[in-house]
Amino acid sequence: MRTAIGVDVGGTGTKAAIVDTEGRILARSERPTDPSAGTKGIIAVIDDLTSKAPDLSVEIGGVGVGLAGFVDPASGKVSFSPNLTYDDPNVAAAVRARIDVPVQVDNDANVAAWGEYRFGTAKGLEHVAMVTIGTGVGSGFVVAGGLLRGATGAAAELGHMVIAPDGPPCPCGLRGCLEQFASGTGIRRLAIEAVEQDPSSSILAFAGTASSITAKHVAMAARQLDEVARTVLRTAGRTLGIGLSNVVNIFDPQVIVLTGGVVNAGEPYLGPARDTLNEMNLAQRRRATRIDKASLGNDAGVIGAAALVLD
Amino acid sequence: MRTAIGVDVGGTGTKAAIVDTEGRILARSERPTDPSAGTKGIIAVIDDLTSKAPDLSVEIGGVGVGLAGFVDPASGKVSFSPNLTYDDPNVAAAVRARIDVPVQVDNDANVAAWGEYRFGTAKGLEHVAMVTIGTGVGSGFVVAGGLLRGATGAAAELGHMVIAPDGPPCPCGLRGCLEQFASGTGIRRLAIEAVEQDPSSSILAFAGTASSITAKHVAMAARQLDEVARTVLRTAGRTLGIGLSNVVNIFDPQVIVLTGGVVNAGEPYLGPARDTLNEMNLAQRRRATRIDKASLGNDAGVIGAAALVLD
Repeated sequence: MRTAIGVDVGGTGTKAAIVDTEGRILARSERPTDPSAGTKGIIAVIDDLTSKAPDLSVEIGGVGVGLAGFVDPASGKVSFSPNLTYDDPNVAAAVRARIDVPVQVDNDANVAAWGEYRFGTAKGLEHVAMVTIGTGVGSGFVVAGGLLRGATGAAAELGHMVIAPDGPPCPCGLRGCLEQFASGTGIRRLAIEAVEQDPSSSILAFAGTASSITAKHVAMAARQLDEVARTVLRTAGRTLGIGLSNVVNIFDPQVIVLTGGVVNAGEPYLGPARDTLNEMNLAQRRRATRIDKASLGNDAGVIGAAALVLD
Repeated sequence: MRTAIGVDVGGTGTKAAIVDTEGRILARSERPTDPSAGTKGIIAVIDDLTSKAPDLSVEIGGVGVGLAGFVDPASGKVSFSPNLTYDDPNVAAAVRARIDVPVQVDNDANVAAWGEYRFGTAKGLEHVAMVTIGTGVGSGFVVAGGLLRGATGAAAELGHMVIAPDGPPCPCGLRGCLEQFASGTGIRRLAIEAVEQDPSSSILAFAGTASSITAKHVAMAARQLDEVARTVLRTAGRTLGIGLSNVVNIFDPQVIVLTGGVVNAGEPYLGPARDTLNEMNLAQRRRATRIDKASLGNDAGVIGAAALVLD
């Protein structure tokens, strides 16, 4: 049976799976990510799986890798990685030296978008915007059935779209990036400001101290109807909605797929995002935009990476 | 010789040309645009040119049409047109009923981008962002050698990317659209505000009254080193630069091509735009982005429309 190995390099773990042409996972491996040796970690999980391949009677027809950063789509070389050092930045060549099959390396949000496009919530559509909301905001865009990669693999950085030129500084170097409002980091920032004004918020009770606040604490407080937490998530969600309106004006997608840990904050965050986007669509007399949660969950990356090299 | 007719429907005139496969214009026609009968006007300029075709010994292999609005890329039907009524919104079918050749109808900024991509300043590149700055801000994006059209032909509306959520209202229904700062309309708005504060500006001397101010008066005053005019153009240009940084973060293009009347305001406008984009690229440690003026000028539309149907 024809299969491929899909690898998803995350901040804490490097996950991999043998995936068939229907997007089914046949075997898995996961190892902790070594922040100073990303490429070695990729090779290690591939070795884990190739050793399992004979027992499964499958042929490994390729390897797809998704990782955070800019990847040159032609060479498979990592040109910029924000959090992780690749001991060999030419990831595609390093993998090919280990296993002689076609190798495709791409941005992690791109491969997750490809997974949802091929086998997830966006299956059967051709114009798909996927937005990943975790610590930061990532994105992947399927345009007329192909991934938007840009000239050097540095496209689809929706999190660094500036929507408030005088807004708070972003580690990327700009000010007022979408990520500074709509991500986990943005929610944390807004919440620290908010509990300074109102220390009675149960956000503080969950977090202990202001500096320990995470988006999770805010979501927990919001579930208990804490008004400060709900206001923070409303601001974050509304700003996400503005970002999604920009996505609609630029891409005119059939669906916007949302994924990432912050989506679990649920309605106090997603409601204002949807409402804002709907209001903006309506004001422009645009058709309503479908918004869905991703259906492959944490497997979108490994499935998408494998699908990308099989396609 | 194989040629096509390219049609460019503007607010005042409907232009058309017979264009060969090398992008050369062999014959032209132009008629005033009837705001209540856009489709009839298109047919009329096509008739003008088909009558000239025998003398030129050319074969008309297709008709391409560019017009302002949303065009369904598959059917060639206009679904939204801001300034003009199409007596028959199914423009492609109406043209085909008159001349039995392949017909392609697209957004005007898209066809102009296609012209610059095939025969203009972006020739030989595959990732091109074209931004048209006139009364409004339009855009066309070539992504991996294809035009970004979106699911319903409503993509590439860069002018309505919100970059200041609490900013001035835009006729589109949103607030703080890029167009409200960086376009002719935006420059006019900023200038009216500015001369209220400082009526000694020579903008007023050129325009007569505040309500008659256009971007041209501001550009004239700026050329005479009027500080109020230069501040207005600096604000408009810087905001354009922020919009272009967003284009870079989303598309990672090889070149950004600028066109449209406001580009003629020159360095007092373009300098701050380029400087802002360069500063933002540098802050993000991105490579510098090439910015060029369009090279086909007012012919980009007719050449691009013809090329689109020939390609």
